Amino acid sequence: MQNYKITVAYDGTRYKGWQSQKTTEATIQGKLEGVLEKTVGYPVSVTGAGRTDAGVHAKGQTANFRLQEPLDEAELLEWFYRYLPGDIAVLTVKKASERFHSRFFATGKVYCYRIRTSRIPNVFERGYTYTYTEPLSIEAMREAAGYLTGTRDFTSFCGNRHMKKSAVRSLYEIRLQEEADELKIFYYGNSFLQNMLRIITGTLLEVGAGQRDPKEIPEILAAKKRECAGFMAPACGLALLEVKYN
Amino acid sequence: MQNYKITVAYDGTRYKGWQSQKTTEATIQGKLEGVLEKTVGYPVSVTGAGRTDAGVHAKGQTANFRLQEPLDEAELLEWFYRYLPGDIAVLTVKKASERFHSRFFATGKVYCYRIRTSRIPNVFERGYTYTYTEPLSIEAMREAAGYLTGTRDFTSFCGNRHMKKSAVRSLYEIRLQEEADELKIFYYGNSFLQNMLRIITGTLLEVGAGQRDPKEIPEILAAKKRECAGFMAPACGLALLEVKYN
Repeated sequence: MQNYKITVAYDGTRYKGWQSQKTTEATIQGKLEGVLEKTVGYPVSVTGAGRTDAGVHAKGQTANFRLQEPLDEAELLEWFYRYLPGDIAVLTVKKASERFHSRFFATGKVYCYRIRTSRIPNVFERGYTYTYTEPLSIEAMREAAGYLTGTRDFTSFCGNRHMKKSAVRSLYEIRLQEEADELKIFYYGNSFLQNMLRIITGTLLEVGAGQRDPKEIPEILAAKKRECAGFMAPACGLALLEVKYN
Repeated sequence: MQNYKITVAYDGTRYKGWQSQKTTEATIQGKLEGVLEKTVGYPVSVTGAGRTDAGVHAKGQTANFRLQEPLDEAELLEWFYRYLPGDIAVLTVKKASERFHSRFFATGKVYCYRIRTSRIPNVFERGYTYTYTEPLSIEAMREAAGYLTGTRDFTSFCGNRHMKKSAVRSLYEIRLQEEADELKIFYYGNSFLQNMLRIITGTLLEVGAGQRDPKEIPEILAAKKRECAGFMAPACGLALLEVKYN
Protein backbone atom coordinates (compact mmCIF):
# COMPACT_ATOMS: atom_id res chain seq x y z
CA MET A 1 0.00 0.00 0.00
CA GLN A 2 1.23 3.51 -0.81
CA ASN A 3 -0.10 6.47 1.14
CA TYR A 4 -0.53 9.84 -0.66
CA LYS A 5 -0.98 13.37 0.66
CA ILE A 6 -2.84 15.79 -1.59
CA THR A 7 -3.80 19.46 -1.34
CA VAL A 8 -7.12 20.43 -2.83
CA ALA A 9 -8.85 23.70 -3.76
CA TYR A 10 -12.58 23.91 -4.36
CA ASP A 11 -15.43 26.28 -4.94
CA GLY A 12 -17.88 24.76 -2.44
CA THR A 13 -20.99 26.46 -3.87
CA ARG A 14 -22.41 23.35 -5.56
CA TYR A 15 -21.50 20.85 -2.84
CA LYS A 16 -22.98 19.46 0.36
CA GLY A 17 -19.59 19.97 1.98
CA TRP A 18 -16.47 17.84 2.17
CA GLN A 19 -18.45 14.87 3.42
CA SER A 20 -22.14 14.12 3.77
CA GLN A 21 -24.22 11.65 5.77
CA LYS A 22 -26.19 10.81 2.64
CA THR A 23 -24.02 9.00 0.13
CA THR A 24 -26.16 10.19 -2.78
CA GLU A 25 -25.30 13.88 -2.28
CA ALA A 26 -22.49 15.63 -4.14
CA THR A 27 -19.47 16.09 -1.87
CA ILE A 28 -15.85 16.99 -2.49
CA GLN A 29 -14.68 13.74 -0.92
CA GLY A 30 -17.10 11.80 -3.12
CA LYS A 31 -15.81 13.46 -6.32
CA LEU A 32 -12.17 12.70 -5.40
CA GLU A 33 -13.03 9.09 -4.55
CA GLY A 34 -14.90 8.79 -7.84
CA VAL A 35 -11.86 9.87 -9.86
CA LEU A 36 -9.57 7.52 -7.94
CA GLU A 37 -11.86 4.51 -8.42
CA LYS A 38 -12.10 5.32 -12.14
CA THR A 39 -8.28 5.51 -12.29
CA VAL A 40 -7.28 2.41 -10.30
CA GLY A 41 -10.37 0.21 -10.70
CA TYR A 42 -11.19 -0.36 -7.01
CA PRO A 43 -12.79 1.80 -4.29
CA VAL A 44 -10.39 4.22 -2.56
CA SER A 45 -11.26 6.06 0.63
CA VAL A 46 -10.09 9.70 0.90
CA THR A 47 -9.64 11.26 4.37
CA GLY A 48 -9.77 15.05 4.67
CA ALA A 49 -8.08 17.18 7.34
CA GLY A 50 -11.26 19.15 7.99
CA ARG A 51 -14.90 18.57 7.13
CA THR A 52 -15.93 21.85 5.56
CA ASP A 53 -19.67 22.68 5.68
CA ALA A 54 -21.92 22.75 2.63
CA GLY A 55 -21.04 25.82 0.55
CA VAL A 56 -17.69 26.50 2.25
CA HIS A 57 -14.66 26.88 -0.04
CA ALA A 58 -11.05 25.71 0.26
CA LYS A 59 -7.78 26.96 -1.16
CA GLY A 60 -5.63 24.42 0.66
CA GLN A 61 -7.64 21.52 2.05
CA THR A 62 -5.39 18.52 2.71
CA ALA A 63 -6.33 14.85 2.41
CA ASN A 64 -4.73 11.43 2.18
CA PHE A 65 -5.55 8.08 0.60
CA ARG A 66 -3.87 4.72 0.06
CA LEU A 67 -3.40 2.81 -3.21
CA GLN A 68 -2.65 -0.92 -3.49
CA GLU A 69 -0.09 -0.34 -6.26
CA PRO A 70 1.95 2.86 -6.23
CA LEU A 71 1.26 5.30 -9.07
CA ASP A 72 3.51 8.14 -10.13
CA GLU A 73 2.64 11.49 -8.47
CA ALA A 74 2.55 13.36 -11.80
CA GLU A 75 0.34 10.67 -13.32
CA LEU A 76 -2.15 10.92 -10.46
CA LEU A 77 -2.18 14.71 -10.80
CA GLU A 78 -2.98 14.28 -14.49
CA TRP A 79 -5.93 11.94 -13.77
CA PHE A 80 -7.35 14.42 -11.27
CA TYR A 81 -6.90 17.22 -13.81
CA ARG A 82 -8.73 15.23 -16.48
CA TYR A 83 -11.63 13.84 -14.49
CA LEU A 84 -12.44 16.36 -11.74
CA PRO A 85 -15.16 18.95 -12.40
CA GLY A 86 -14.00 22.55 -12.94
CA ASP A 87 -14.81 23.60 -9.38
CA ILE A 88 -12.43 21.10 -7.72
CA ALA A 89 -8.66 21.06 -8.32
CA VAL A 90 -5.96 18.86 -6.85
CA LEU A 91 -2.99 21.22 -6.48
CA THR A 92 -0.28 18.81 -5.28
CA VAL A 93 0.19 15.04 -4.91
CA LYS A 94 3.01 13.69 -2.74
CA LYS A 95 3.85 10.19 -1.54
CA ALA A 96 3.49 10.13 2.26
CA SER A 97 4.74 7.85 5.00
CA GLU A 98 2.52 4.87 5.80
CA ARG A 99 1.54 6.45 9.15
CA PHE A 100 0.49 9.85 7.76
CA HIS A 101 -3.15 10.82 8.51
CA SER A 102 -4.32 14.19 7.20
CA ARG A 103 -6.52 14.96 10.22
CA PHE A 104 -4.61 13.43 13.15
CA PHE A 105 -1.25 14.81 11.99
CA ALA A 106 -2.53 18.36 11.38
CA THR A 107 -1.17 20.89 13.88
CA GLY A 108 -3.36 23.79 12.81
CA LYS A 109 -5.82 25.10 10.25
CA VAL A 110 -6.20 28.59 8.89
CA TYR A 111 -9.60 29.78 7.71
CA CYS A 112 -10.60 33.15 6.31
CA TYR A 113 -14.04 34.72 6.42
CA ARG A 114 -14.45 37.49 3.81
CA ILE A 115 -16.96 40.28 4.46
CA ARG A 116 -17.76 42.72 1.66
CA THR A 117 -18.43 46.04 3.43
CA SER A 118 -19.32 48.16 0.39
CA ARG A 119 -22.75 48.60 -1.17
CA ILE A 120 -20.99 48.47 -4.55
CA PRO A 121 -20.85 44.73 -5.29
CA ASN A 122 -17.77 43.00 -6.68
CA VAL A 123 -19.49 40.79 -9.24
CA PHE A 124 -16.43 38.55 -9.69
CA GLU A 125 -16.13 37.77 -5.97
CA ARG A 126 -19.83 37.49 -5.20
CA GLY A 127 -19.68 33.73 -4.57
CA TYR A 128 -16.77 34.09 -2.14
CA THR A 129 -17.78 36.99 0.09
CA TYR A 130 -20.69 37.87 2.36
CA THR A 131 -21.98 41.43 2.01
CA TYR A 132 -22.65 43.21 5.31
CA THR A 133 -22.96 46.96 4.93
CA GLU A 134 -23.74 48.14 8.50
CA PRO A 135 -20.93 50.43 9.74
CA LEU A 136 -18.60 48.29 11.85
CA SER A 137 -16.46 49.13 14.87
CA ILE A 138 -13.34 47.06 14.22
CA GLU A 139 -12.07 48.00 17.67
CA ALA A 140 -15.13 46.45 19.35
CA MET A 141 -14.79 43.34 17.16
CA ARG A 142 -11.12 43.00 18.14
CA GLU A 143 -12.05 43.25 21.82
CA ALA A 144 -14.71 40.54 21.38
CA ALA A 145 -12.25 38.38 19.44
CA GLY A 146 -9.84 38.63 22.39
CA TYR A 147 -12.38 36.89 24.65
CA LEU A 148 -12.76 34.07 22.13
CA THR A 149 -9.07 33.34 21.68
CA GLY A 150 -7.58 30.55 23.77
CA THR A 151 -8.83 27.19 24.99
CA ARG A 152 -12.55 27.46 25.73
CA ASP A 153 -15.80 25.51 25.78
CA PHE A 154 -17.46 26.65 22.54
CA THR A 155 -20.87 24.97 23.10
CA SER A 156 -22.62 28.33 22.50
CA PHE A 157 -20.92 28.52 19.10
CA CYS A 158 -21.71 24.98 17.97
CA GLY A 159 -24.32 24.41 15.25
CA ASN A 160 -24.93 20.81 16.34
CA ARG A 161 -27.29 21.03 19.35
CA HIS A 162 -27.09 17.30 19.96
CA MET A 163 -23.34 17.23 20.36
CA LYS A 164 -22.46 14.81 23.15
CA LYS A 165 -18.64 15.05 23.10
CA SER A 166 -16.50 17.81 24.56
CA ALA A 167 -16.89 21.23 22.94
CA VAL A 168 -13.56 22.46 24.27
CA ARG A 169 -11.37 23.77 21.46
CA SER A 170 -8.26 25.94 21.13
CA LEU A 171 -8.55 29.02 18.95
CA TYR A 172 -4.96 30.26 18.70
CA GLU A 173 -5.64 33.50 16.87
CA ILE A 174 -8.40 35.68 15.39
CA ARG A 175 -7.00 38.41 13.15
CA LEU A 176 -9.09 41.16 11.53
CA GLN A 177 -7.68 42.71 8.38
CA GLU A 178 -9.35 45.78 6.90
CA GLU A 179 -9.10 46.35 3.14
CA ALA A 180 -10.66 48.94 0.83
CA ASP A 181 -14.13 47.36 0.55
CA GLU A 182 -13.61 44.26 2.57
CA LEU A 183 -13.01 42.97 6.07
CA LYS A 184 -11.16 39.67 6.32
CA ILE A 185 -11.27 37.63 9.53
CA PHE A 186 -8.52 35.01 9.77
CA TYR A 187 -9.02 32.14 12.20
CA TYR A 188 -6.18 29.91 13.29
CA GLY A 189 -6.88 26.87 15.43
CA ASN A 190 -6.53 23.12 15.35
CA SER A 191 -10.05 21.79 15.34
CA PHE A 192 -13.44 23.45 15.12
CA LEU A 193 -17.02 22.48 15.99
CA GLN A 194 -19.74 22.35 13.35
CA ASN A 195 -20.56 25.88 12.07
CA MET A 196 -18.31 27.31 14.84
CA LEU A 197 -16.43 29.85 12.71
CA ARG A 198 -19.62 31.02 10.98
CA ILE A 199 -21.40 31.56 14.34
CA ILE A 200 -18.33 33.36 15.74
CA THR A 201 -18.27 35.54 12.61
CA GLY A 202 -21.98 36.39 12.97
CA THR A 203 -21.49 37.24 16.63
CA LEU A 204 -18.47 39.43 15.87
CA LEU A 205 -20.50 41.26 13.20
CA GLU A 206 -23.30 41.94 15.73
CA VAL A 207 -20.66 43.34 18.09
CA GLY A 208 -19.17 45.44 15.29
CA ALA A 209 -22.59 46.83 14.36
CA GLY A 210 -23.21 47.86 17.98
CA GLN A 211 -26.00 45.33 18.59
CA ARG A 212 -23.94 43.63 21.30
CA ASP A 213 -21.29 44.75 23.73
CA PRO A 214 -17.92 42.96 23.41
CA LYS A 215 -18.10 42.35 27.18
CA GLU A 216 -21.05 39.97 26.61
CA ILE A 217 -18.73 37.37 25.07
CA PRO A 218 -17.57 35.81 28.37
CA GLU A 219 -21.26 35.43 29.38
CA ILE A 220 -22.12 33.85 26.03
CA LEU A 221 -19.28 31.35 26.46
CA ALA A 222 -20.33 30.60 30.05
CA ALA A 223 -24.00 30.08 29.11
CA LYS A 224 -23.17 27.09 26.88
CA LYS A 225 -26.32 27.74 24.89
CA ARG A 226 -26.40 28.24 21.12
CA GLU A 227 -29.23 30.80 21.38
CA CYS A 228 -27.01 33.14 23.44
CA ALA A 229 -24.58 33.65 20.54
CA GLY A 230 -25.20 35.62 17.34
CA PHE A 231 -26.44 34.66 13.89
CA MET A 232 -24.66 32.16 11.69
CA ALA A 233 -22.87 34.00 8.85
CA PRO A 234 -23.46 32.33 5.45
CA ALA A 235 -21.15 29.58 4.19
CA CYS A 236 -20.10 31.44 1.02
CA GLY A 237 -17.80 33.84 2.92
CA LEU A 238 -15.71 31.10 4.51
CA ALA A 239 -12.68 29.33 3.04
CA LEU A 240 -10.15 26.86 4.45
CA LEU A 241 -6.82 28.40 3.44
CA GLU A 242 -4.23 26.04 4.84
CA VAL A 243 -3.69 22.94 6.94
CA LYS A 244 -0.44 23.04 8.88
CA TYR A 245 1.82 20.05 9.67
CA ASN A 246 5.05 19.84 11.62
CA MET B 1 -33.70 65.98 -19.51
CA GLN B 2 -30.67 65.04 -17.45
CA ASN B 3 -27.90 62.92 -18.98
CA TYR B 4 -26.03 60.43 -16.75
CA LYS B 5 -22.73 58.61 -17.22
CA ILE B 6 -22.37 55.29 -15.42
CA THR B 7 -19.59 52.70 -15.12
CA VAL B 8 -20.69 49.10 -14.94
CA ALA B 9 -19.03 45.78 -14.03
CA TYR B 10 -20.51 42.44 -14.97
CA ASP B 11 -19.88 38.75 -15.06
CA GLY B 12 -21.04 38.08 -18.61
CA THR B 13 -21.43 34.30 -18.21
CA ARG B 14 -25.25 34.27 -18.08
CA TYR B 15 -25.84 36.97 -20.71
CA LYS B 16 -26.24 37.24 -24.47
CA GLY B 17 -23.85 40.17 -24.37
CA TRP B 18 -24.34 43.88 -23.79
CA GLN B 19 -27.05 44.05 -26.41
CA SER B 20 -28.94 41.45 -28.43
CA GLN B 21 -30.94 41.48 -31.64
CA LYS B 22 -33.68 39.51 -29.92
CA THR B 23 -35.36 41.60 -27.26
CA THR B 24 -36.41 38.51 -25.28
CA GLU B 25 -32.83 37.49 -24.47
CA ALA B 26 -31.07 38.47 -21.24
CA THR B 27 -28.60 41.28 -21.90
CA ILE B 28 -26.72 43.68 -19.65
CA GLN B 29 -28.32 46.69 -21.35
CA GLY B 30 -31.76 45.10 -20.88
CA LYS B 31 -31.20 44.56 -17.14
CA LEU B 32 -30.06 48.18 -16.65
CA GLU B 33 -33.03 49.51 -18.63
CA GLY B 34 -35.35 47.30 -16.58
CA VAL B 35 -34.12 48.78 -13.29
CA LEU B 36 -34.41 52.35 -14.63
CA GLU B 37 -37.96 51.83 -15.88
CA LYS B 38 -38.90 50.32 -12.51
CA THR B 39 -37.36 53.35 -10.77
CA VAL B 40 -38.74 56.23 -12.87
CA GLY B 41 -41.89 54.68 -14.34
CA TYR B 42 -41.16 55.19 -18.05
CA PRO B 43 -38.85 53.45 -20.56
CA VAL B 44 -35.24 54.64 -20.49
CA SER B 45 -32.74 53.76 -23.21
CA VAL B 46 -29.17 52.96 -22.07
CA THR B 47 -26.27 53.40 -24.54
CA GLY B 48 -23.06 51.45 -23.94
CA ALA B 49 -19.57 52.43 -25.07
CA GLY B 50 -18.87 48.97 -26.45
CA ARG B 51 -21.11 46.04 -27.33
CA THR B 52 -19.43 43.14 -25.56
CA ASP B 53 -20.13 39.65 -26.99
CA ALA B 54 -22.18 37.00 -25.21
CA GLY B 55 -20.16 35.68 -22.27
CA VAL B 56 -17.60 38.52 -22.23
CA HIS B 57 -17.07 40.29 -18.89
CA ALA B 58 -16.55 43.93 -17.96
CA LYS B 59 -14.83 45.67 -15.07
CA GLY B 60 -15.38 49.17 -16.41
CA GLN B 61 -17.98 49.31 -19.17
CA THR B 62 -19.33 52.85 -19.56
CA ALA B 63 -22.84 53.85 -20.59
CA ASN B 64 -25.15 56.84 -20.58
CA PHE B 65 -28.90 57.47 -20.35
CA ARG B 66 -31.26 60.44 -20.01
CA LEU B 67 -34.00 60.98 -17.42
CA GLN B 68 -36.90 63.40 -17.79
CA GLU B 69 -36.58 64.57 -14.16
CA PRO B 70 -33.12 64.65 -12.56
CA LEU B 71 -32.54 62.16 -9.76
CA ASP B 72 -29.76 62.33 -7.20
CA GLU B 73 -26.64 60.32 -8.18
CA ALA B 74 -26.51 58.49 -4.83
CA GLU B 75 -30.20 57.64 -5.07
CA LEU B 76 -29.76 56.15 -8.54
CA LEU B 77 -26.78 54.13 -7.32
CA GLU B 78 -28.96 52.77 -4.51
CA TRP B 79 -31.73 51.70 -6.93
CA PHE B 80 -29.19 49.87 -9.09
CA TYR B 81 -27.76 48.22 -5.98
CA ARG B 82 -31.20 47.05 -4.87
CA TYR B 83 -32.63 45.82 -8.15
CA LEU B 84 -29.74 44.56 -10.28
CA PRO B 85 -28.92 40.84 -10.18
CA GLY B 86 -25.71 39.85 -8.34
CA ASP B 87 -23.68 39.52 -11.54
CA ILE B 88 -24.16 43.15 -12.65
CA ALA B 89 -23.00 46.14 -10.59
CA VAL B 90 -23.18 49.86 -11.32
CA LEU B 91 -19.94 51.22 -9.85
CA THR B 92 -20.41 54.96 -10.37
CA VAL B 93 -23.20 57.36 -11.45
CA LYS B 94 -22.34 60.92 -12.53
CA LYS B 95 -24.41 63.67 -14.09
CA ALA B 96 -23.05 64.34 -17.60
CA SER B 97 -23.34 67.19 -20.06
CA GLU B 98 -26.32 67.04 -22.40
CA ARG B 99 -24.01 66.23 -25.35
CA PHE B 100 -22.17 63.32 -23.74
CA HIS B 101 -22.45 60.01 -25.64
CA SER B 102 -20.65 57.01 -24.14
CA ARG B 103 -19.63 55.55 -27.51
CA PHE B 104 -18.97 58.63 -29.68
CA PHE B 105 -17.00 60.42 -26.93
CA ALA B 106 -14.82 57.43 -26.07
CA THR B 107 -11.17 57.89 -27.08
CA GLY B 108 -10.05 54.34 -26.32
CA LYS B 109 -10.95 51.02 -24.75
CA VAL B 110 -8.76 48.61 -22.85
CA TYR B 111 -9.57 44.91 -22.92
CA CYS B 112 -7.73 42.04 -21.27
CA TYR B 113 -7.71 38.41 -22.40
CA ARG B 114 -6.65 36.04 -19.59
CA ILE B 115 -5.03 32.71 -20.50
CA ARG B 116 -4.46 30.14 -17.77
CA THR B 117 -1.25 28.35 -18.78
CA SER B 118 -1.09 25.80 -15.96
CA ARG B 119 -2.69 22.35 -15.89
CA ILE B 120 -3.51 23.04 -12.23
CA PRO B 121 -6.85 24.85 -12.45
CA ASN B 122 -7.66 27.94 -10.38
CA VAL B 123 -11.20 27.00 -9.38
CA PHE B 124 -12.07 30.56 -8.27
CA GLU B 125 -11.08 32.11 -11.61
CA ARG B 126 -12.41 29.38 -13.87
CA GLY B 127 -15.19 31.56 -15.30
CA TYR B 128 -12.79 34.38 -16.15
CA THR B 129 -9.87 32.63 -17.80
CA TYR B 130 -9.31 30.32 -20.77
CA THR B 131 -7.01 27.38 -20.13
CA TYR B 132 -4.43 26.75 -22.87
CA THR B 133 -1.60 24.51 -21.74
CA GLU B 134 0.55 24.14 -24.89
CA PRO B 135 4.03 25.60 -24.29
CA LEU B 136 4.02 29.14 -25.70
CA SER B 137 6.75 31.23 -27.27
CA ILE B 138 5.98 34.70 -25.94
CA GLU B 139 8.65 36.13 -28.22
CA ALA B 140 6.88 34.78 -31.33
CA MET B 141 3.54 36.09 -30.03
CA ARG B 142 5.05 39.55 -29.47
CA GLU B 143 6.43 39.54 -33.03
CA ALA B 144 2.99 38.60 -34.40
CA ALA B 145 1.35 41.26 -32.22
CA GLY B 146 3.68 43.85 -33.75
CA TYR B 147 2.20 43.17 -37.21
CA LEU B 148 -1.33 43.67 -35.82
CA THR B 149 -0.68 46.98 -34.12
CA GLY B 150 -1.57 50.14 -36.03
CA THR B 151 -4.34 51.10 -38.43
CA ARG B 152 -5.23 48.06 -40.54
CA ASP B 153 -8.07 46.36 -42.38
CA PHE B 154 -9.08 43.61 -39.92
CA THR B 155 -11.55 41.78 -42.22
CA SER B 156 -9.68 38.49 -41.62
CA PHE B 157 -10.27 38.95 -37.87
CA CYS B 158 -13.97 39.79 -38.08
CA GLY B 159 -16.56 37.27 -36.91
CA ASN B 160 -19.31 38.83 -38.99
CA ARG B 161 -18.80 37.51 -42.53
CA HIS B 162 -21.56 39.71 -43.92
CA MET B 163 -20.02 42.96 -42.75
CA LYS B 164 -20.55 45.57 -45.43
CA LYS B 165 -18.92 48.59 -43.77
CA SER B 166 -15.22 49.35 -43.47
CA ALA B 167 -13.19 46.91 -41.38
CA VAL B 168 -10.35 49.38 -40.88
CA ARG B 169 -9.59 49.82 -37.19
CA SER B 170 -6.74 51.24 -35.10
CA LEU B 171 -5.18 48.92 -32.56
CA TYR B 172 -2.89 51.21 -30.56
CA GLU B 173 -1.23 48.56 -28.44
CA ILE B 174 -1.08 44.81 -27.73
CA ARG B 175 0.80 44.06 -24.53
CA LEU B 176 1.61 40.54 -23.28
CA GLN B 177 2.15 40.15 -19.55
CA GLU B 178 3.44 36.85 -18.18
CA GLU B 179 2.48 35.85 -14.64
CA ALA B 180 3.06 32.68 -12.62
CA ASP B 181 0.31 30.54 -14.17
CA GLU B 182 -1.24 33.03 -16.50
CA LEU B 183 -0.63 35.03 -19.64
CA LYS B 184 -2.55 38.29 -19.92
CA ILE B 185 -2.96 40.01 -23.28
CA PHE B 186 -3.98 43.67 -23.00
CA TYR B 187 -5.56 45.29 -26.05
CA TYR B 188 -5.86 49.05 -26.41
CA GLY B 189 -7.78 50.52 -29.30
CA ASN B 190 -10.77 52.68 -30.02
CA SER B 191 -13.23 50.44 -31.76
CA PHE B 192 -13.24 46.73 -32.55
CA LEU B 193 -15.05 44.47 -35.02
CA GLN B 194 -17.29 41.64 -33.84
CA ASN B 195 -15.20 38.86 -32.18
CA MET B 196 -12.03 40.67 -33.35
CA LEU B 197 -10.08 40.44 -30.08
CA ARG B 198 -11.03 36.79 -29.60
CA ILE B 199 -9.88 35.87 -33.14
CA ILE B 200 -6.65 37.84 -32.68
CA THR B 201 -6.11 36.02 -29.35
CA GLY B 202 -6.69 32.61 -30.98
CA THR B 203 -4.28 33.48 -33.80
CA LEU B 204 -1.62 34.70 -31.35
CA LEU B 205 -1.98 31.43 -29.40
CA GLU B 206 -1.46 29.41 -32.59
CA VAL B 207 1.69 31.46 -33.25
CA GLY B 208 2.84 30.94 -29.65
CA ALA B 209 2.29 27.19 -29.91
CA GLY B 210 4.40 27.06 -33.10
CA GLN B 211 1.49 26.16 -35.38
CA ARG B 212 1.98 29.38 -37.36
CA ASP B 213 4.92 31.62 -38.12
CA PRO B 214 4.58 35.22 -36.89
CA LYS B 215 5.56 36.31 -40.41
CA GLU B 216 2.24 34.92 -41.72
CA ILE B 217 0.33 37.78 -40.06
CA PRO B 218 0.82 40.34 -42.87
CA GLU B 219 -0.47 37.73 -45.36
CA ILE B 220 -3.47 36.99 -43.16
CA LEU B 221 -4.29 40.71 -42.99
CA ALA B 222 -3.83 41.09 -46.76
CA ALA B 223 -6.06 38.07 -47.55
CA LYS B 224 -9.13 39.74 -45.98
CA LYS B 225 -10.62 36.31 -45.37
CA ARG B 226 -11.78 35.07 -41.96
CA GLU B 227 -10.62 31.50 -42.72
CA CYS B 228 -7.00 32.67 -43.05
CA ALA B 229 -6.84 33.70 -39.37
CA GLY B 230 -6.75 31.40 -36.33
CA PHE B 231 -9.44 30.02 -34.06
CA MET B 232 -11.72 32.22 -31.99
CA ALA B 233 -10.70 32.06 -28.32
CA PRO B 234 -13.69 31.58 -25.98
CA ALA B 235 -15.60 34.57 -24.60
CA CYS B 236 -14.96 33.73 -20.93
CA GLY B 237 -11.31 34.89 -21.06
CA LEU B 238 -12.13 38.40 -22.29
CA ALA B 239 -13.03 41.44 -20.19
CA LEU B 240 -13.52 45.12 -20.99
CA LEU B 241 -11.39 46.85 -18.37
CA GLU B 242 -11.78 50.54 -19.10
CA VAL B 243 -13.27 53.07 -21.51
CA LYS B 244 -11.15 56.19 -21.86
CA TYR B 245 -12.45 59.74 -22.38
CA ASN B 246 -10.61 63.04 -22.80
